[in-house]
Amino acid sequence: MSPYVPSGELVERAATGETAAIGRLISRAEANMAEARGALAEIYLRAGRSHVIGITGVPGSGKSTLVASLTAKLRRKGSKVGVIAVDPSSPYSGGAILGDRIRMSDLVMDPGVYIRSMATHGSVGGLAHATLSAIDILDFAGFDTIIVETVGVGQDEVEIAKASHTTIVVSAPGLGDEIQAIKAGMLEIADIHVVSKCDRSDANKTLVDIKQMLTLDAATSRLPAWRTPVVGLSSYTGDGYPELVEEIEKHRAFASGVKPSAAREASIASFRLQKTAETLLMDRFATSSARFRKSITERLQKRESDPYSLANELLTLSLG
Amino acid sequence: MSPYVPSGELVERAATGETAAIGRLISRAEANMAEARGALAEIYLRAGRSHVIGITGVPGSGKSTLVASLTAKLRRKGSKVGVIAVDPSSPYSGGAILGDRIRMSDLVMDPGVYIRSMATHGSVGGLAHATLSAIDILDFAGFDTIIVETVGVGQDEVEIAKASHTTIVVSAPGLGDEIQAIKAGMLEIADIHVVSKCDRSDANKTLVDIKQMLTLDAATSRLPAWRTPVVGLSSYTGDGYPELVEEIEKHRAFASGVKPSAAREASIASFRLQKTAETLLMDRFATSSARFRKSITERLQKRESDPYSLANELLTLSLG
Repeated sequence: MSPYVPSGELVERAATGETAAIGRLISRAEANMAEARGALAEIYLRAGRSHVIGITGVPGSGKSTLVASLTAKLRRKGSKVGVIAVDPSSPYSGGAILGDRIRMSDLVMDPGVYIRSMATHGSVGGLAHATLSAIDILDFAGFDTIIVETVGVGQDEVEIAKASHTTIVVSAPGLGDEIQAIKAGMLEIADIHVVSKCDRSDANKTLVDIKQMLTLDAATSRLPAWRTPVVGLSSYTGDGYPELVEEIEKHRAFASGVKPSAAREASIASFRLQKTAETLLMDRFATSSARFRKSITERLQKRESDPYSLANELLTLSLG
Repeated sequence: MSPYVPSGELVERAATGETAAIGRLISRAEANMAEARGALAEIYLRAGRSHVIGITGVPGSGKSTLVASLTAKLRRKGSKVGVIAVDPSSPYSGGAILGDRIRMSDLVMDPGVYIRSMATHGSVGGLAHATLSAIDILDFAGFDTIIVETVGVGQDEVEIAKASHTTIVVSAPGLGDEIQAIKAGMLEIADIHVVSKCDRSDANKTLVDIKQMLTLDAATSRLPAWRTPVVGLSSYTGDGYPELVEEIEKHRAFASGVKPSAAREASIASFRLQKTAETLLMDRFATSSARFRKSITERLQKRESDPYSLANELLTLSLG
């Protein structure tokens, strides 16, 4: 084990882009370490320059391949790219993603790319809070574009994808229940729709389905006057990627030029506030006396009191 | 629209098993209505008899078919069964699930069965809180067994499945990333593993894989001395269902007889408390003055202050 480095010192090292410092700060955010809070607050105040792209889609939609290809494309344009994967099935272990076409390990070796998987289970202070902190850290450390990949199922996971500047929803042909799932909440969060695996013969049906849904529900876009594009692509042939990069640039330029962008920033801020408050609340409970914790859970468990009364007690105690 | 019925009156109607009253109470929990809180608190105090079964698995694992078949089996044994589906792709719309073998509509017509889908997006007070309240309501209304189906991705979704007396994790052959996903957090929450679609020739590999993982990680079971079974079943042939029902009964009997059950109840209570506190906290923010809300999100958005300081302000205000 390396000696413990105070978080304040890690901030200065992360400012120069030092990978190890970035990793340790993210781990401390994930572990909800009280010692790191001042450092994370400072990082927040000094961040805010990156373009955050949220990518979401159901398992099997080809998100991870898209993230790897998109990262490679953005690198070639000179962007430093940070990738945060909030997906238990993400294959970011250095192995091959697309046979020998793109090796994640090539990206891993590139100092202009930082890839991090977030633990989806056991994040002490909550997954969303840890992910939002990781975005700040990469932003602060000088990454121009930050891609956050989340699986498109799970309330917090979808919220995280939504809390970005450009949200991409990925669909793929041949996944029966998928369109259903999209209808149930993913459709309206997309700034850009992607249909992956467009080398498959049944991809056209998926493209048509999504375009049809967009026509039916004209009010889906979160920015008025932004016409949500549907981009078909194939990570195998490379088709569609130039168009996707272009649409991302367009959306970025469009969003920064219009008033509604402020509304989006406000909704991101409000989500952030909520997740931080939840984290602080749970932390105070965890650090309260063992006796208090035992008493309050026992009373709930034995149904001597109800969840609302006890939650109120918890909120009151939090200020002691 | 029917006239507004006070929640207190709905409680008395739900106590007699009146379906409409049950549905309205669940909707009010979902909408986080302040008027319903006293009623929900009372219901909590008077509930606590049902056996809650959490069923989780990745999309495509055959959860919904399993839930339908299991419900039919439990009905034949005389149990009143409540089903809560927290899954955007759940097909509980009255259509056929297994061709003409089981029609969900047959179950829907059965007064001893209550089926409810929870909105996974836009639950005002949070999905977990609404789902836990729905469990109380069905418990209070006299359902012996409550099945909660959640998709096995998403932090809250997995937590909900875990917050039950018996947790079943469903796997299926032919889903590449699935085993990965299970490894990442679902493995250790299972009291019973089910491999569905065992009429397929590749099902045996999945069975062997899971048994192997269980052997490698001997400490997975949440109850010491409970040997987590792996049940293979086919909803098409009906094979495995008698064994599954038996294992559920065994686990129920086992869990109620041992001390660690109290630890489990305590962890369920603690999760409940956390979700209720979060709901109350967000509610207080939402009902605070527009000026306060605007000021706090603007300061965060403009990075004049950091998330921790502002979240602390929010927690303090909550008591005002």
